[in-house]
Amino acid sequence: MNGPRFDDTFLERLHDLFRWRRDVRHFRSDPIAGDTIAELVKETALSPSVGYSQPWRFVRVDTPERRAAIAGSFERANAEALGGYHGDDAEKYASLKLAGLRDAPVHLAVFCDESTTTGKGLGRATMPEMLAYSAANAVYTFWLAARARGIGAGWVSILEPQLVTQTLDVPPDWKLIAYLCVGYPADEYDRPELERAGWETRDERATKLYER
Amino acid sequence: MNGPRFDDTFLERLHDLFRWRRDVRHFRSDPIAGDTIAELVKETALSPSVGYSQPWRFVRVDTPERRAAIAGSFERANAEALGGYHGDDAEKYASLKLAGLRDAPVHLAVFCDESTTTGKGLGRATMPEMLAYSAANAVYTFWLAARARGIGAGWVSILEPQLVTQTLDVPPDWKLIAYLCVGYPADEYDRPELERAGWETRDERATKLYER
Repeated sequence: MNGPRFDDTFLERLHDLFRWRRDVRHFRSDPIAGDTIAELVKETALSPSVGYSQPWRFVRVDTPERRAAIAGSFERANAEALGGYHGDDAEKYASLKLAGLRDAPVHLAVFCDESTTTGKGLGRATMPEMLAYSAANAVYTFWLAARARGIGAGWVSILEPQLVTQTLDVPPDWKLIAYLCVGYPADEYDRPELERAGWETRDERATKLYER
Repeated sequence: MNGPRFDDTFLERLHDLFRWRRDVRHFRSDPIAGDTIAELVKETALSPSVGYSQPWRFVRVDTPERRAAIAGSFERANAEALGGYHGDDAEKYASLKLAGLRDAPVHLAVFCDESTTTGKGLGRATMPEMLAYSAANAVYTFWLAARARGIGAGWVSILEPQLVTQTLDVPPDWKLIAYLCVGYPADEYDRPELERAGWETRDERATKLYER
């Protein structure tokens, strides 16, 4: 069986997709049409997973009370984190917009179902954390598929994971992987916001090919 | 600033890329030309990372002794895992080809540098595992970029992580995320090998949009 060939034009566009993906924190208020989100979640079926375990669970959060509880969790965790920085770092940290929880029309919590028996445990005896990596990569599939449709996502991790699990009334063995703010980006950039804000620069160790 | 728009043709091809990505275990012996692998690793610079921490480290493993030590680790971990299955599952497990360590022209170990200060810890106070998720996402960027060029990758996790770290003489706080077998696939399929082999089927919970 022969798979598809991808031409140079596609390779360039794929590079553009990676380059313009962005972690989005500033959203327009336009809603996301119809079943777009459900379609994007369906696309995650094509994500890689250890032993074909498919452990990701996508939960759309619409209830205002639940959204408010999660925003509260962010505020606490963010204030706590700010307390750990000093001087110039603290000033910069305080100036960053680290979540789009108020503006984003869609909130999605993504969990890893640690109790799943799908895949029969294959591939995770010595590396049990592979299950969570599979869920993290499903987030990335969603993210790329969304951006290709002009939709932005921001991955919020400044949250109390247990509070999110309880607030959303999901099984206790669903481990929080990501809380995604999703919507149309207010602006588009090809550089990470944390780079533009002077928080961090490219790390050359991340593009080096080490040899052994 | 306006980012690129992606047309329907690109969306279809992106879907094809997700659909045909595959975890490859059967490789042709053709080498990968010149600096293709280094170029693919450069592409991972565009991966998302928590607080812009960029914690992934790609290590090409060429030394025969090191490859042999890692193949030995796979053999042990695989035999141990087989011992955990019974009856039909054990028979099926034994018949699966779970690594392409012998055939793949390129071996790549991917680590998460748990000691990195890049990103200044932003976004991982309450979810420290975010750092490893960032490295897992970089593996996926590599995987997609490789497949778009006709190159296959197989993510081996049936290994003793500490032995890999020691064998490759990398810093002890580099946590093993993936050991990738890379090369041109012997065959191409649009269905996961574990599905074709009757090990597991699609899990509808992974494509459902839960609501709260």
